[in-house]
Amino acid sequence: MAKRILLLNGPNLALLGTREPAIYGTTTLADVVAAVRAAAEARGWSVDDVQSDVEGELVRAICGARGVYDGIILNPAAYTHTSVALHDAIKACEVPTVEVHLSNVYAREGYRHESLTAPACVGQICGFGLKGYLLALDALA
Amino acid sequence: MAKRILLLNGPNLALLGTREPAIYGTTTLADVVAAVRAAAEARGWSVDDVQSDVEGELVRAICGARGVYDGIILNPAAYTHTSVALHDAIKACEVPTVEVHLSNVYAREGYRHESLTAPACVGQICGFGLKGYLLALDALA
Amino acid sequence: MAKRILLLNGPNLALLGTREPAIYGTTTLADVVAAVRAAAEARGWSVDDVQSDVEGELVRAICGARGVYDGIILNPAAYTHTSVALHDAIKACEVPTVEVHLSNVYAREGYRHESLTAPACVGQICGFGLKGYLLALDALA
Amino acid sequence: MAKRILLLNGPNLALLGTREPAIYGTTTLADVVAAVRAAAEARGWSVDDVQSDVEGELVRAICGARGVYDGIILNPAAYTHTSVALHDAIKACEVPTVEVHLSNVYAREGYRHESLTAPACVGQICGFGLKGYLLALDALA
Amino acid sequence: MAKRILLLNGPNLALLGTREPAIYGTTTLADVVAAVRAAAEARGWSVDDVQSDVEGELVRAICGARGVYDGIILNPAAYTHTSVALHDAIKACEVPTVEVHLSNVYAREGYRHESLTAPACVGQICGFGLKGYLLALDALA
Amino acid sequence: MAKRILLLNGPNLALLGTREPAIYGTTTLADVVAAVRAAAEARGWSVDDVQSDVEGELVRAICGARGVYDGIILNPAAYTHTSVALHDAIKACEVPTVEVHLSNVYAREGYRHESLTAPACVGQICGFGLKGYLLALDALA
Amino acid sequence: MAKRILLLNGPNLALLGTREPAIYGTTTLADVVAAVRAAAEARGWSVDDVQSDVEGELVRAICGARGVYDGIILNPAAYTHTSVALHDAIKACEVPTVEVHLSNVYAREGYRHESLTAPACVGQICGFGLKGYLLALDALA
Amino acid sequence: MAKRILLLNGPNLALLGTREPAIYGTTTLADVVAAVRAAAEARGWSVDDVQSDVEGELVRAICGARGVYDGIILNPAAYTHTSVALHDAIKACEVPTVEVHLSNVYAREGYRHESLTAPACVGQICGFGLKGYLLALDALA
Amino acid sequence: MAKRILLLNGPNLALLGTREPAIYGTTTLADVVAAVRAAAEARGWSVDDVQSDVEGELVRAICGARGVYDGIILNPAAYTHTSVALHDAIKACEVPTVEVHLSNVYAREGYRHESLTAPACVGQICGFGLKGYLLALDALA
Amino acid sequence: MAKRILLLNGPNLALLGTREPAIYGTTTLADVVAAVRAAAEARGWSVDDVQSDVEGELVRAICGARGVYDGIILNPAAYTHTSVALHDAIKACEVPTVEVHLSNVYAREGYRHESLTAPACVGQICGFGLKGYLLALDALA
Amino acid sequence: MAKRILLLNGPNLALLGTREPAIYGTTTLADVVAAVRAAAEARGWSVDDVQSDVEGELVRAICGARGVYDGIILNPAAYTHTSVALHDAIKACEVPTVEVHLSNVYAREGYRHESLTAPACVGQICGFGLKGYLLALDALA
Amino acid sequence: MAKRILLLNGPNLALLGTREPAIYGTTTLADVVAAVRAAAEARGWSVDDVQSDVEGELVRAICGARGVYDGIILNPAAYTHTSVALHDAIKACEVPTVEVHLSNVYAREGYRHESLTAPACVGQICGFGLKGYLLALDALA
Repeated sequence: MAKRILLLNGPNLALLGTREPAIYGTTTLADVVAAVRAAAEARGWSVDDVQSDVEGELVRAICGARGVYDGIILNPAAYTHTSVALHDAIKACEVPTVEVHLSNVYAREGYRHESLTAPACVGQICGFGLKGYLLALDALA
Repeated sequence: MAKRILLLNGPNLALLGTREPAIYGTTTLADVVAAVRAAAEARGWSVDDVQSDVEGELVRAICGARGVYDGIILNPAAYTHTSVALHDAIKACEVPTVEVHLSNVYAREGYRHESLTAPACVGQICGFGLKGYLLALDALA
Repeated sequence: MAKRILLLNGPNLALLGTREPAIYGTTTLADVVAAVRAAAEARGWSVDDVQSDVEGELVRAICGARGVYDGIILNPAAYTHTSVALHDAIKACEVPTVEVHLSNVYAREGYRHESLTAPACVGQICGFGLKGYLLALDALA
Repeated sequence: MAKRILLLNGPNLALLGTREPAIYGTTTLADVVAAVRAAAEARGWSVDDVQSDVEGELVRAICGARGVYDGIILNPAAYTHTSVALHDAIKACEVPTVEVHLSNVYAREGYRHESLTAPACVGQICGFGLKGYLLALDALA
Repeated sequence: MAKRILLLNGPNLALLGTREPAIYGTTTLADVVAAVRAAAEARGWSVDDVQSDVEGELVRAICGARGVYDGIILNPAAYTHTSVALHDAIKACEVPTVEVHLSNVYAREGYRHESLTAPACVGQICGFGLKGYLLALDALA
Repeated sequence: MAKRILLLNGPNLALLGTREPAIYGTTTLADVVAAVRAAAEARGWSVDDVQSDVEGELVRAICGARGVYDGIILNPAAYTHTSVALHDAIKACEVPTVEVHLSNVYAREGYRHESLTAPACVGQICGFGLKGYLLALDALA
Repeated sequence: MAKRILLLNGPNLALLGTREPAIYGTTTLADVVAAVRAAAEARGWSVDDVQSDVEGELVRAICGARGVYDGIILNPAAYTHTSVALHDAIKACEVPTVEVHLSNVYAREGYRHESLTAPACVGQICGFGLKGYLLALDALA
Repeated sequence: MAKRILLLNGPNLALLGTREPAIYGTTTLADVVAAVRAAAEARGWSVDDVQSDVEGELVRAICGARGVYDGIILNPAAYTHTSVALHDAIKACEVPTVEVHLSNVYAREGYRHESLTAPACVGQICGFGLKGYLLALDALA
Repeated sequence: MAKRILLLNGPNLALLGTREPAIYGTTTLADVVAAVRAAAEARGWSVDDVQSDVEGELVRAICGARGVYDGIILNPAAYTHTSVALHDAIKACEVPTVEVHLSNVYAREGYRHESLTAPACVGQICGFGLKGYLLALDALA
Repeated sequence: MAKRILLLNGPNLALLGTREPAIYGTTTLADVVAAVRAAAEARGWSVDDVQSDVEGELVRAICGARGVYDGIILNPAAYTHTSVALHDAIKACEVPTVEVHLSNVYAREGYRHESLTAPACVGQICGFGLKGYLLALDALA
Repeated sequence: MAKRILLLNGPNLALLGTREPAIYGTTTLADVVAAVRAAAEARGWSVDDVQSDVEGELVRAICGARGVYDGIILNPAAYTHTSVALHDAIKACEVPTVEVHLSNVYAREGYRHESLTAPACVGQICGFGLKGYLLALDALA
Repeated sequence: MAKRILLLNGPNLALLGTREPAIYGTTTLADVVAAVRAAAEARGWSVDDVQSDVEGELVRAICGARGVYDGIILNPAAYTHTSVALHDAIKACEVPTVEVHLSNVYAREGYRHESLTAPACVGQICGFGLKGYLLALDALA
């Protein structure tokens, strides 16, 4: 069945490729979106993508996904560790959501080990850079 | 004396009625606004309402209430537990504010027991669904 | 339907009106009881009231309410923050209970922010002085 | 390039399929091994698998992987949350390791949110049942 | 060398001068901006200023500063204590940033003692009101 | 040797049999007392029993047991987790005391895992309903 | 000026002299009362004394002291560490209160180091056995 | 009905009788096994017993009990406080399990107060030495 | 018996009388020393006094008191809350020591509630200003 | 108005310039004193400077500043994080004090994030090396 | 007197020399054993050595040392920080035990600072690589 | 190569031999110094020794060791657990330092388990009394 996928990227990810390449690599956000879109289209699926630095806009996008998308790939970035609102949005929209992180959050500062959003998701994938997004797409199949 | 009331609803409340009805019930946000407006008008008061998923827009609305409104009914939803900015806004605007929660936050996850915003309010009402808003209106009388 | 209400006030509330008026105001406990009774009677409801400084007497009153009252308005005062026994009593009696506090507990010492009793109640109202009891009566309607 | 993969499963996973199916599903450990092997062979890779309930045997297997395997897929199960020894083993063996969990550990008890082993791994995948192992295999490609 | 400076003010600072004058004084935000601009121009530097109540807009402004500004003077206000996203933005933009607070945050509530943003900055200045911004400008020289 | 046993039951246990039967079962307090008495008499021992909702009355009963009873079977219920006074009473009376809980306190809320009274007792038995009291009697043999 | 003193002793102190003499000594409560009375009468003061194991009775005694006594000597015993209600009572009665402990609470278990009641008192004296009560009387002079 | 019982003893219990007799007494493990077996046979039940110092071997024994035994008497000794794996094993095997401790764990170091295994058991018995095992057998009846 | 008393005052006490009079009163250190000396001489005792702002000098004075003095009256001031060295010195010198505080430390910041030195003392007296020193002298009798 | 400034440097700062230059730079303490003196003299102010490794000597210097100096520039170095005595001294002397740190304490170990001394100061400046002292001088203007 | 020494090495130490040489150096476990044996034989002592990755096997070896060895040199490696069972084994075997760590555990992650096993040992030596084992041998003399 | 060693002993160690002999033994500080000097001279090394009760004097001695000594043997005694200044001094002086404790700090109060100074040292030796100093000398070889 053809699925409609929402690809959501959170704060600071627009700088991907220039931002701290030792941690995040040189892949750009455009690369990520293109790769996810290509992989989705190979399955006959469609992808819409949103990047926002604003927690509330991400909340709005997730609320708006209700009944419109079949799956969400979400990289909440820094909001992973501080946003109860995103947690509530994922619960409220009832669309299966996979949380993705480019870096291995467990190998970084302690406050990046806890995820407020993951309990509301189907699962979480971290540490594999761009490939993590493609694994998330597979996970939604 | 006729009072001007600002009714403020925070993140994910636009989905009210569809979102986790076991916790939040089937009342919609429109129902809430209509009920508050009706009760206010019965007192000869006026009500403006704003719903936003964006913490900073709620901050802005509260700052803007200074000298314009006589009372605020605020459901900060998820931001209750994470927003120092809303706390500071309520202090700064100097408009009596009543915090409302649809559900009994004490009967839920531990991180929902603490409110960063309540210390800046006149008081808090939780657990009574839509009726909580009407009690808040009474409390402002 | 006519409801039978139990109005329960906890430790130190007998001194209400003389005790720290900057925090608790000058209303006496007799004022509170009279106001609740008047409002209840206006609805055709009856009110019994008990004040006790003894945690176990409050527990006993709540246990005894089972099958006798249709609602409890409870101000557990200091026991709010230390009494597992009151929590268990509210659960055990299965009478809808509303927790009331005269002052805004969130604006006071940190140990007054947590309520052991509230998770067993329908909801909580704090910060509105005597009026909080009347709002609780409305909430039970 | 053909890769040699070590598939390691920790305590209680021999009961997979019968153990708490509401959390872990009805897939058996044999199903997991067969699926990983099939997917690996489709890539021309080889898979050895070990299941042990003994923390030290898992440590030994990981130490022994040094210079022998090109990747490890590790489900440390309960030891995820208590084993410094496994963390040290993964560091010591210098074989890229992917941590897999069948269930979404974030949606369970608080003590399952922290992973002592993940900081030593390349990344972590959780919440996707048997499919998580296959995603891990892809991640090692 | 002429420097381009970005002056960033966070939530509730638009109310400066009216908001809790006992803590924040009677200087307005316009006064702050004018004073910084005058001091910068005296050095032959330029200043752009942004005030936003929205965490994500501040993130966006900082990301956008990359390669455009030579220094940022940032008063993150309430977001100081809750925003991992601002921390990541300052790291990502690689523009030397000085954190400024009008009040002495150490003399206030305990939760205002920790700064999530300061570790990503060059340094921090607090407690000197408007003058703190001018000291920050000097610090960037 | 014939032993004199004091059977002490704490707050809310008068409601046993009606209170939350999913946790506490349908056995009444009278059933408990009768069963303990029958088992004691089968050994030629005597049993006195007290139930009180008041922490201080339980303290008084334990203090009064000094030199009068040969063993105490104590279900402190909610006071288990909050009462230093009961701990001190058990120490002071120097009568061997066995702590009993109907439910498995470890399988409930975290604050029920710690017992302030158990360190002063000979031992603790929990999770076996009415039978736990009989095991306690055996333990005192 | 002749002062009226209320001497209040908390839970388990009726057993004084028999209870754990290694910690509390062999002085009885009657000895304490007699010694305080003698010392008071030597000053021309009067002493009333109350011992109760019930927290709420101590609360009641303190509330009742308002306007009746000029000073309270209070040994709250175990309730020192658990009673917010006693704290509130001392504040409410507005009679200067001195907290006394027979033993040096700091040399015992950690949970005996914190006093919930002391912040509401004039001061605290601990570690001097019976003599501590006499020092408290002097302190009230 | 004749029951098949598995008696499981954890680390260091082979030294029972010689190990710290002030805490654990002079009963040997052989004494324990003989006493349990005698009591079981008096009921027409059978007992198999295993002692292991290896956490994973205890896990394996519990997993292997599924469908084979009707009850487990488990003294997890030191693993009580550190083993999530044993907790998961007890849950997975679905055989009613009673946790036994020779000493009163509450009267010892703080880290012995918490049990990771007890939440998965039917109940817990501690402080009664060898007799605790016999009480556990009764509890399984 | 004539006693030799060492009166030790810690950091900042030289400013007594000018320092924060709202907390510490207007009595000077000279007043304190004179009053203690007068009271001691009335008993036929001798007093030596030392004031030092240096933790190690206080340690030295206490070590030097061994075998020379019969009692120490110690106001460790700020070092009360941070000095393990003073704790060890009091233990090492084996001279009965009474800890005195001018203010009620329990009514101040939380970090002033814990005393590292008190566990090594005979007892503690706080909240009575200069009189506390005289009570300490009595306590040493 | 000509101001008299006390420049106070705490422990280990005598090694400045040789000590961990990656963190503290190659500026020596003499450089710091000379630069502050030059800047002060340019304003017509005078500067006295003290460096001490002894907490109590810094306390003494601050106490001695009362009524003698118009401002203190204080780098408490390691004592920032452990000294209640310095906090009390700053409060007691009532001379406006600015806390300076050479490095950005927020970018270092967690225990360097909290300052016990800053709450008693006018404000704090950190992260700007020698320049921080000059900014502090400006701040006192 | 000739002593019989048991040299015990814990998990991952078989990889010594290859494992993270920046932390652990290039000495192999064989080098360690040979050096300890040579030093022991120089004293006329004998050495048996065991390395195991399995916590329970180390427990077993320690239990078996009772009455057989005169001293144990134990490097518990990762189990230092997680094993109550090893603590209990050292207590139970009553053989003087010296804990050794190759690296300075205090200079590493926070969770490596606490040792569960050291309280049961005679003492601890850390940070000196292979030489630490030889110092331990001297310490046992 | 002949080494110059600085032997540094912290607070209360002048009382060694008289102070709490059950914990610290009867060896005096002079014994310690003599033994270390003898052992050093046997190697052709020189030893200077300093004992001080003053944290800052120990800091000064360590700072002064830079470029003068080849090794420091440091027993920081009580300052081990409270002194960031000593930690910074050891880092600053860049002389290899071995931390020694007479007693096994792990077998004492919890606050003696953490060492603020050890992370800056080469290693730590505790529990071996006077011999620990000699082992430290060996460790510096």
